[in-house]
Amino acid sequence: MTIEEELEIITRNVEEYISEEELVAKLKKSRQEKRPLRIKAGFDPTAPDLHLGHTVLLNKLRQFQDLGHEVYFLIGDFTAMIGDPTGRSEVRKALTREEVLKNAETYKEQVFKILDPEKTKVVFNSQWLGRMSAEDMVRLTAKYTVARMLERDDFKKRFREGIPIFIHEFIYPLMQGYDSVALEADIELGGTDQRFNLLVARDIQREYGQEPEVIMMLPILEGLDGVQKMSKSLGNYVGITEPPNQMYGKLMSISDELMWRYYQLLSNLSPAEIEKKKREVQEGRYHPKRAKMDLAFEIVARFHGVEAAKKAEEEFERVFAKKGLPEDMPEMVIVTQDPKLKITRILTDTRMARSNAEAKRLVQQGGVRWDGERVTDINAEIPCDDKEHILRVGKKKFCRVRFDVRE
Amino acid sequence: MTIEEELEIITRNVEEYISEEELVAKLKKSRQEKRPLRIKAGFDPTAPDLHLGHTVLLNKLRQFQDLGHEVYFLIGDFTAMIGDPTGRSEVRKALTREEVLKNAETYKEQVFKILDPEKTKVVFNSQWLGRMSAEDMVRLTAKYTVARMLERDDFKKRFREGIPIFIHEFIYPLMQGYDSVALEADIELGGTDQRFNLLVARDIQREYGQEPEVIMMLPILEGLDGVQKMSKSLGNYVGITEPPNQMYGKLMSISDELMWRYYQLLSNLSPAEIEKKKREVQEGRYHPKRAKMDLAFEIVARFHGVEAAKKAEEEFERVFAKKGLPEDMPEMVIVTQDPKLKITRILTDTRMARSNAEAKRLVQQGGVRWDGERVTDINAEIPCDDKEHILRVGKKKFCRVRFDVRE
Repeated sequence: MTIEEELEIITRNVEEYISEEELVAKLKKSRQEKRPLRIKAGFDPTAPDLHLGHTVLLNKLRQFQDLGHEVYFLIGDFTAMIGDPTGRSEVRKALTREEVLKNAETYKEQVFKILDPEKTKVVFNSQWLGRMSAEDMVRLTAKYTVARMLERDDFKKRFREGIPIFIHEFIYPLMQGYDSVALEADIELGGTDQRFNLLVARDIQREYGQEPEVIMMLPILEGLDGVQKMSKSLGNYVGITEPPNQMYGKLMSISDELMWRYYQLLSNLSPAEIEKKKREVQEGRYHPKRAKMDLAFEIVARFHGVEAAKKAEEEFERVFAKKGLPEDMPEMVIVTQDPKLKITRILTDTRMARSNAEAKRLVQQGGVRWDGERVTDINAEIPCDDKEHILRVGKKKFCRVRFDVRE
Repeated sequence: MTIEEELEIITRNVEEYISEEELVAKLKKSRQEKRPLRIKAGFDPTAPDLHLGHTVLLNKLRQFQDLGHEVYFLIGDFTAMIGDPTGRSEVRKALTREEVLKNAETYKEQVFKILDPEKTKVVFNSQWLGRMSAEDMVRLTAKYTVARMLERDDFKKRFREGIPIFIHEFIYPLMQGYDSVALEADIELGGTDQRFNLLVARDIQREYGQEPEVIMMLPILEGLDGVQKMSKSLGNYVGITEPPNQMYGKLMSISDELMWRYYQLLSNLSPAEIEKKKREVQEGRYHPKRAKMDLAFEIVARFHGVEAAKKAEEEFERVFAKKGLPEDMPEMVIVTQDPKLKITRILTDTRMARSNAEAKRLVQQGGVRWDGERVTDINAEIPCDDKEHILRVGKKKFCRVRFDVRE
């Protein structure tokens, strides 16, 4: 393979990278010295439930591995173990070492569905940051100015709006940069939303006398809604460990437009093959629903195998296609801690009823069906299981409902 | 002594303190528990040549000691040992532990001319800051926001003018605050220019669950020029280890207006006694020059004894008064590394000549005198000793010249 071919694969679907010249030089040097490049990608140990959004980056890491390079899967445990020292955020509780290690195991189980374990080094930044003294930290913070840090979009916005920025928040990007120094990273991958921090890492490496890493920014995958970024907290995600039927059904719920975006970012098809499919749809020789089913099939097969994908497709056909339900039903995820919920609560949570009073009236009038069964008792309770359900109100209002039960 | 009397002494000449209520409560508690208050004052170990400007604060510390309290003479060696990590400043070189200890000894020799060694604890903040981990530092920096730090006048100004502020500079005030936590300080003294940092220390103590220290801000002593603050680098200072004649001569060079300021801040006379002197001068019963001599005498006697002060007064009378020289000669300090300097260089450095060419011409024309001796050789070299000299150009231009020889 030529350098040009390697470059084409590496940069495919990458939104932005800095810089091509440096990347080519690194690839050449790697060949000359027969030394694999060190590819860094950082992950937050507090949220080990990976979804398809994460796989855009993981797939790219895998490509590097297939080209013979070495991936440093960096778990940013140092700051996670500190938590939120201001005590403002309930969510960012400090993790113990045990929790970090447990989360890391969960990560590994998931990422090794994509990454090659042989060419992956899982590292924790507490290994070097935990050994730093206060003095080392002062020296690190002397590498960057307040004004430059305030150029980061979110800081700029908060500063302008008078929303407090605590000083340690300025240190976190510097520590992330120092991770690159500790790893002597050649290349770092991140989302486009990490642009600022990635640039900082280059500066910090320079300050510590290293050649700056090449930074590659991958596009952020939109969630099932096609608008916001895929994220667990927004409920618009497909987890890579979700059961096959659920994964398949969620993927079938996306718009045709989003389908092509998912093809581009998630499918293993080459750009040429995707282009061909698109053309066929435009020419009416390939039904968009079929295209969506093929995409859903490919992704379910990747995480659960071909057999499971086949079964999921059959189940989908049975439940939806054969019931004559509309294809464009909205999908709602209800986050709850309860093992079961009242039907009226479900009606309001899904916006199928505008108020509790309306919900009660709809039930009493006999217009509400749960998975096809009429519900007439306003006190009826629905178990919050992990299946997908169909909620119907009247003749025309449909909605898919799933539960996200939190302990 | 009543609390009210103690309060009057403590707050005399203090520009601002926060707060009276807290101060009274601490004084009361100290009496009840028969526990001396812990008075903190921080000093920079890089500049151990104390001058009269420092003694304003040292005198106040001494008053606390005379009232039975305990002084923590804090040497901020932690940051001094880091130096300027940005490498921008040649001046702020990192000090070694040996240098810090040597400087501390020089400090002690000087401050114990004023402070009571029995009631003074000399402490180094590297004792606690040096033991902090990077994590402790992150936690400390989480106690303060960027916006509040940017309220500090010098930061605000630099930020507005686009002059870089490095992030570690935001950490230094927090570390100073943490010093108060480590010492469990009841009261901290500082200059009015330390107002922001002193307020931060109160916040940090609160954050660490301590009662905030009372902060007392002492006026900044003007230098011999009566305009800028007394400082070694500006050359407008009287060092407390300077020889008696030099100290006396310098004090005699100040304006009458500045003399009363020095009386207020440096003399041991009570406010009432100073008021009386002022009145006598106004009424013409006391010559202002005599008032100045009495002040110079008091200060020289404090650091060198009464005998030395008498001799200095006699010398002053002999050299200046009896020579009929003008009283208001400007005084110039020439900072140099050379053991001798050309007369032409001295003429330009003191602004007695506007250019080297003019200096040469003045010498050649026979209009230049050094300590009364005519200098006619344009290559004449003057030894840079530690005495005061008179440079005269023509009939009417006089100037006092001293050398500050740096190794």
